[in-house]
Amino acid sequence: MSRYAPSSSLLGRAKSGETAAIARLISRAEAGVEEVRETLAGIYQLSGSAHVIGITGVPGSGKSTLVAALAGRLRKLGMKVGIVAVDPSSPYTGGSILGDRIRMTDIASDPGIYIRSMATRGAVGGLARATLEATDILDIGGFDTIIVETVGVGQDEVEIAKASNTTIVVSAPGLGDDVQAIKAGMLEIADIHVVSKCDRSDASRTITDLKTMLMLGLKPGETPDWNAPVVGISSYTGDGFDELIDALTRHRKVAFDSESGRKRRLAIARYRLHKTAETLLIERFTEESRPHCSALAQRLSDRQADPYSLANELVTASLEKGIFNR
Amino acid sequence: MSRYAPSSSLLGRAKSGETAAIARLISRAEAGVEEVRETLAGIYQLSGSAHVIGITGVPGSGKSTLVAALAGRLRKLGMKVGIVAVDPSSPYTGGSILGDRIRMTDIASDPGIYIRSMATRGAVGGLARATLEATDILDIGGFDTIIVETVGVGQDEVEIAKASNTTIVVSAPGLGDDVQAIKAGMLEIADIHVVSKCDRSDASRTITDLKTMLMLGLKPGETPDWNAPVVGISSYTGDGFDELIDALTRHRKVAFDSESGRKRRLAIARYRLHKTAETLLIERFTEESRPHCSALAQRLSDRQADPYSLANELVTASLEKGIFNR
Repeated sequence: MSRYAPSSSLLGRAKSGETAAIARLISRAEAGVEEVRETLAGIYQLSGSAHVIGITGVPGSGKSTLVAALAGRLRKLGMKVGIVAVDPSSPYTGGSILGDRIRMTDIASDPGIYIRSMATRGAVGGLARATLEATDILDIGGFDTIIVETVGVGQDEVEIAKASNTTIVVSAPGLGDDVQAIKAGMLEIADIHVVSKCDRSDASRTITDLKTMLMLGLKPGETPDWNAPVVGISSYTGDGFDELIDALTRHRKVAFDSESGRKRRLAIARYRLHKTAETLLIERFTEESRPHCSALAQRLSDRQADPYSLANELVTASLEKGIFNR
Repeated sequence: MSRYAPSSSLLGRAKSGETAAIARLISRAEAGVEEVRETLAGIYQLSGSAHVIGITGVPGSGKSTLVAALAGRLRKLGMKVGIVAVDPSSPYTGGSILGDRIRMTDIASDPGIYIRSMATRGAVGGLARATLEATDILDIGGFDTIIVETVGVGQDEVEIAKASNTTIVVSAPGLGDDVQAIKAGMLEIADIHVVSKCDRSDASRTITDLKTMLMLGLKPGETPDWNAPVVGISSYTGDGFDELIDALTRHRKVAFDSESGRKRRLAIARYRLHKTAETLLIERFTEESRPHCSALAQRLSDRQADPYSLANELVTASLEKGIFNR
């Protein structure tokens, strides 16, 4: 098959669950190729039935091991599971290839599990937009549960984990104070708290500390319909996974059938609208600003004026032209 | 002193080289605080005399060790050296705190060396814009040489290293093939190639391979005024640093006094103009789009239309309003 097969035929193949077609559509979404947008628009309107689970946690919290173990459990329950791993910079930076992804090999040979690393950077709104598009594509490809894993460092990553039906924040015993401080900023997005590595003797302390933090004013994930539970798990012994699956099943119902679930979907739509608009805005601006750039850059280079004044001139000039052209 | 001292008094203190004032200005630039822009505008017009050296290389190439050793050498020549380390995600991710930055402690106690980690993410154009502003601030603070170190993974990071007077690309012996492939994409931005770890027996092979790659069509950093040299160094034995300092001194002259240097400054101005404009554009858009968001997000959430169509409506509606308001 040609690399340049029309997106429409890819769509049909993706809908029948063919992973090569799914992979290609995700790559096109990730690259932000303009030609694929019509197809993605159609995919969006067909999607929305999969349970999207965002999983985040600080480095070292055991996220990826949890994702692998959870995917294996869901698989045993007969579900098809898609995993979208969002990497802070690239698949080539040590962490993900040498560390996290390798642990995935246990489940990577199962055709009912699809794993994808996203590595988009630089494009405005690109990472969030492409990740949401990847979940849509997996959704129409018949994946019942889609896990979006992000490292919980950086605002973008936390927001992406939040843009799901159910958000799990993973904590672990034995992490340093710096790391705990980052964690505090993430706790409020959790629908389910998981404390991993509960085979360790210091894990019960971590659970107690977490529950205390939650009682001290932080009311994460609390709506009239839901109180965020704290679930201790061990990916090593398997302890806690029945409880986690139960919490996920209950929260799935809340996400799809309650008023708070409806509000959550609206908030995600708002976020997605903004991220997609940023992509379009910068594209249009880049095009419209081209004729004005050289003269302004020359003045900047000569230090006749400063970057902010000249950038303001550029934005204003480009928008005027953009409006009158359309 | 109040945390909210006016930027004007900070400016005076930064100009006299006071590091606390320099640090505070950089923090404000990094946060993108609107109130500091006038001060940054003034700083830009005063800056431009420091030699800005961008250093990039794949993880494991020995960049940070080179930066520390080079800074020590420049210091011995009587220069004040500013170091801006651009981190792909955050100062908390293992790599930089536990790995790279620690090696900096040898030089961190010297008052003629200022080290700053940048960790901006998420903001549009934010990382590049803030890094360029940080170099301006160090420039007017009397730092003769400013080293901007970025990890050579990701388009943003490579572009930031390129937005300097002199770009050094660091290669090292013994890295894997994946890493070499990433490296190939960076080679063309080098004004000076450094092969680090030349105390290793396999380093001469790396130098030969690099020279072969450069001869095979890649003509990095070549202008009528300059041929990019390949310099082997060992931060451990100190070998090669005299040659590196010599290459830097020669390239500094090219950067400041030649036609190609003038073109380079113009290209950087163009890049900077665009990055600053992106910041302003998204700010303005976020404000102008607010009244339109709710209705469009509701339609998106109900899947009455797709993200691209609605985002297009949002951009168009926001720009119209923005124009007629001004």
